[in-house]
Amino acid sequence: MPLTPEQQAEIDTLRSQPQETLRTVAPGMERHLYTAHPVLDHGFVRVVDYMGDDAAICQAARVSYGKGTKSVSNDEGLIRYLMRHWHSTPFEMCEVKLHVKLPVFVARQWIRHRTANVNEYSARYSILDREFYIPAPDALAAQSTTNNQGRGEALQGDEAQRVLRILQDDAMRCYDHYEQMISEDGQQGLARELARMNLPANVYTQWYWKVDLHNLLHFLRLRADAHAQYEIRVYADAICAIVADWVPAAYKAFEDYRMGGATLSSSALDCVRRMLKGEEVTQESSGMSKGEWREFMGVIEP
Amino acid sequence: MPLTPEQQAEIDTLRSQPQETLRTVAPGMERHLYTAHPVLDHGFVRVVDYMGDDAAICQAARVSYGKGTKSVSNDEGLIRYLMRHWHSTPFEMCEVKLHVKLPVFVARQWIRHRTANVNEYSARYSILDREFYIPAPDALAAQSTTNNQGRGEALQGDEAQRVLRILQDDAMRCYDHYEQMISEDGQQGLARELARMNLPANVYTQWYWKVDLHNLLHFLRLRADAHAQYEIRVYADAICAIVADWVPAAYKAFEDYRMGGATLSSSALDCVRRMLKGEEVTQESSGMSKGEWREFMGVIEP
Amino acid sequence: MPLTPEQQAEIDTLRSQPQETLRTVAPGMERHLYTAHPVLDHGFVRVVDYMGDDAAICQAARVSYGKGTKSVSNDEGLIRYLMRHWHSTPFEMCEVKLHVKLPVFVARQWIRHRTANVNEYSARYSILDREFYIPAPDALAAQSTTNNQGRGEALQGDEAQRVLRILQDDAMRCYDHYEQMISEDGQQGLARELARMNLPANVYTQWYWKVDLHNLLHFLRLRADAHAQYEIRVYADAICAIVADWVPAAYKAFEDYRMGGATLSSSALDCVRRMLKGEEVTQESSGMSKGEWREFMGVIEP
Amino acid sequence: MPLTPEQQAEIDTLRSQPQETLRTVAPGMERHLYTAHPVLDHGFVRVVDYMGDDAAICQAARVSYGKGTKSVSNDEGLIRYLMRHWHSTPFEMCEVKLHVKLPVFVARQWIRHRTANVNEYSARYSILDREFYIPAPDALAAQSTTNNQGRGEALQGDEAQRVLRILQDDAMRCYDHYEQMISEDGQQGLARELARMNLPANVYTQWYWKVDLHNLLHFLRLRADAHAQYEIRVYADAICAIVADWVPAAYKAFEDYRMGGATLSSSALDCVRRMLKGEEVTQESSGMSKGEWREFMGVIEP
Repeated sequence: MPLTPEQQAEIDTLRSQPQETLRTVAPGMERHLYTAHPVLDHGFVRVVDYMGDDAAICQAARVSYGKGTKSVSNDEGLIRYLMRHWHSTPFEMCEVKLHVKLPVFVARQWIRHRTANVNEYSARYSILDREFYIPAPDALAAQSTTNNQGRGEALQGDEAQRVLRILQDDAMRCYDHYEQMISEDGQQGLARELARMNLPANVYTQWYWKVDLHNLLHFLRLRADAHAQYEIRVYADAICAIVADWVPAAYKAFEDYRMGGATLSSSALDCVRRMLKGEEVTQESSGMSKGEWREFMGVIEP
Repeated sequence: MPLTPEQQAEIDTLRSQPQETLRTVAPGMERHLYTAHPVLDHGFVRVVDYMGDDAAICQAARVSYGKGTKSVSNDEGLIRYLMRHWHSTPFEMCEVKLHVKLPVFVARQWIRHRTANVNEYSARYSILDREFYIPAPDALAAQSTTNNQGRGEALQGDEAQRVLRILQDDAMRCYDHYEQMISEDGQQGLARELARMNLPANVYTQWYWKVDLHNLLHFLRLRADAHAQYEIRVYADAICAIVADWVPAAYKAFEDYRMGGATLSSSALDCVRRMLKGEEVTQESSGMSKGEWREFMGVIEP
Repeated sequence: MPLTPEQQAEIDTLRSQPQETLRTVAPGMERHLYTAHPVLDHGFVRVVDYMGDDAAICQAARVSYGKGTKSVSNDEGLIRYLMRHWHSTPFEMCEVKLHVKLPVFVARQWIRHRTANVNEYSARYSILDREFYIPAPDALAAQSTTNNQGRGEALQGDEAQRVLRILQDDAMRCYDHYEQMISEDGQQGLARELARMNLPANVYTQWYWKVDLHNLLHFLRLRADAHAQYEIRVYADAICAIVADWVPAAYKAFEDYRMGGATLSSSALDCVRRMLKGEEVTQESSGMSKGEWREFMGVIEP
Repeated sequence: MPLTPEQQAEIDTLRSQPQETLRTVAPGMERHLYTAHPVLDHGFVRVVDYMGDDAAICQAARVSYGKGTKSVSNDEGLIRYLMRHWHSTPFEMCEVKLHVKLPVFVARQWIRHRTANVNEYSARYSILDREFYIPAPDALAAQSTTNNQGRGEALQGDEAQRVLRILQDDAMRCYDHYEQMISEDGQQGLARELARMNLPANVYTQWYWKVDLHNLLHFLRLRADAHAQYEIRVYADAICAIVADWVPAAYKAFEDYRMGGATLSSSALDCVRRMLKGEEVTQESSGMSKGEWREFMGVIEP
């Protein structure tokens, strides 16, 4: 359960107090505001604030004085054009602020996306909660035998049990020791900024993360991808669902041109052209390496 | 007059349609929304959208579940603490989107602040208006005789007249030729992307500019400063007035710690300490160069 | 002629003084160092400094203690893999510093690429030279009749003559007036920061521009593209030739996966798959708009 | 001992092979190249590459064709002027690439400085070494009783022993379990990307970190400061010593204007002026809060 009753009460209070504004309002996003969408065993994603909507993308692209909208179909066409031709600046005109609770090892991947604003819960100043990510059985995967950087089948039987027990026991023991070390009961008490070093990387942290739509979509393309680590992908998936409600036209274009699309190399395009003329092309005659050919086949014969 | 009646009508329409939102609303900013604040002879600054308020800075600093506000005085103290200790990330949690109309030579200085999002009116696609910045008489300044990079007294009499006439005539002639070159009346018509090269740097352009509060305050510190060129300083001043209404506590801290403050070097601090002990310190005994000493005197005996 | 004899002498001096270093040296880049490659009528690009080579990309990707190179063919494979899978950070480990002389309207497009470091010649402090870009006859193009943002055929006969005369006369007159206004001969002399506003956008400026290889390749993909304005494309082309000598493996991968490649949308991929199965697909049955279909045809039947 | 004999041999090989270059060479930096400066118990900082020197800062500020140096004293004056007036772009023209080995909890603070390029050792792909930071006795500090975010005196006697034993035992046990979980001996073997979550935050990681001089100095100002956590401050100190050899004039200006300087608020400046006129100013009459007054006293009566 990611939220305490007190936290849920704070959220309920915020959701019960609509106010008037002259700004652009995105109805699909108002529905999400403040609500925590659960991710993994203790994590969540929730929208704290947002700026703009589909029309704001067009308004900026047209540098207009009013709403900038001509008609919905016209706006959709413009958004598709902008996405197709990599015009990124109009998408930067929308912004979203999220509150995310996530394991530290996921946070370490996430933070590599530098074009965003972050305020993380400070473990120098505050005491971290006793919450650790323990994978569900089907997420407890073996090392991939074909891909050095991936994972394979779920672990079976005894091995799965053993691993789960280790993860749970080590987390609890490390946290017990964390508490003992910082305790000021009958001793000086170790500085929090030092004691935190005893906590394993599946401990949960949380942060406010603010990003523009262009950079968010770039993040989602990489992290909602099948090659991303499962534990960050579930966060990306949860955000995708939110973005689809916030800026439906932009999200649809993103799905078509980015998530569902593929970049073909010069060699791959050459193969496609030869194939379309009826030529039988093989890896050997393609000019591609085995790895590239396998990926190419995955695109044209999925 | 920076706005046409059609543009004003678009703005009036937007201002007449309040909607409900669950987001944080900054009443001081709602009053500014969409309204064009005139700057220079044809320019303006107007707020198109905003995210956050003073409480949002504290909310992020505390990574809280609800509003994050404890009390107004408590929040003010926290904001002052964050500003004083260069904690920039909570200020990045507020964002503003401005529509600005400005001369090209001002735009060229402005764009050097890279951490912002920009959509500029495209002179490849569209035709620029016949609008040029012509300085008011008291802004028509001579080159500074003491500062290679500044300006001195206003030009007098005939010289002022001569300069004004040159600026006006060249602007009009260049614009006439711009129109003639792109005309498709009885000729092919030069491409817009080429014809624009004939327009001098006082022609007006416009853009949407989106920036977070931390980077905006950094921009204002440099551009509302007495050493900034007058023509960009008036834009910075107009934005300062807006920010003061938007996030009053943050703006007050900014005024105290940044705009009205000064950074003293190690040598300067050493002099202050010696002076406070009663020592007579001169430039010669200060260890500072003449330029540094003059600037130091400007700080302690303004 | 973009360089004065004095400037050429400074460059010759630098090129005559090799020194010993323990750093990685890229022989192909040493040949370019300091030499000005002419672009347009008065512009140039020249390499002032660089960091890294192909091996440095692999060294960083492997976080190795020594050179990080296993073998040349191994490194090429790794570089192709990194490029194909959008692993951008190893390419950020190479850096280049260029000195560029370019017309102001080109500089205004260029500066939109924000992830770079820039020092521009200051027209507040210094006096600009009397140098303006005047297009060669075949670059004097009409507005495109099919693309609002492009250019069409070269202007013919009288019209071409008329346009050239306007561009030349206005440039000279504006510069004459610039000189008159700043002159301190018998008058106060207008401040340089103001006088510059009378100069049209084809006046040349210059800057130092420093960028990492990843962001440089992104710049080149957009600006060496056929849709980029000719006047910035020639700079991008000149830089491409330099990069090909500096990091040959990375440049080759860039040509194959970026410049010569294409991103196909989900709909486009679907069409390719249907076509490869023998289906006759038309724009109507493709699910694509006319514009998208035309671009798609341009990719598979160039 | 941070390096294995094999790693040291790779470094020795690189240091034994000087090559000729036409680029700027900084002799003080050549001496550091590749050598690992030990930090903490297993960490290090070593320079992998660099670009530019003091003269390169001036060359860019002057946008010059040759070296840009007028004379050493002239260059020093220019560098001091640029530092004093916050002209950051010339300092961005120098770049350094470091290889750093550091505990994960330090890496998490470090990465918050976003304007840098990073390649970190991948624990999805590779197996981490059995190396953990265990504080030396004098670094084993208690929580500060006056500052929520700091540390106080070193722990004494039994408590210190207890804490050290916990840190060592938990690290070893977690690492043993990490190895057991990823082992493929008689079992499937847990994916590395999952197993790493069992490792506490004092485990060492390493990365290549590349940054320009302006952003590096900003990092050093914050992280070499007395308020920074000791474990990152020792890295900042090690880098300060390197920078002092690389760009001595820039580093000296940095020490005077940044590290040894202080920013006084408007209220603080007002107090200084009153005091210099002989007035007795107290906290009550200063207009400052108690916290501000204490910090102010620390500046003028250190």
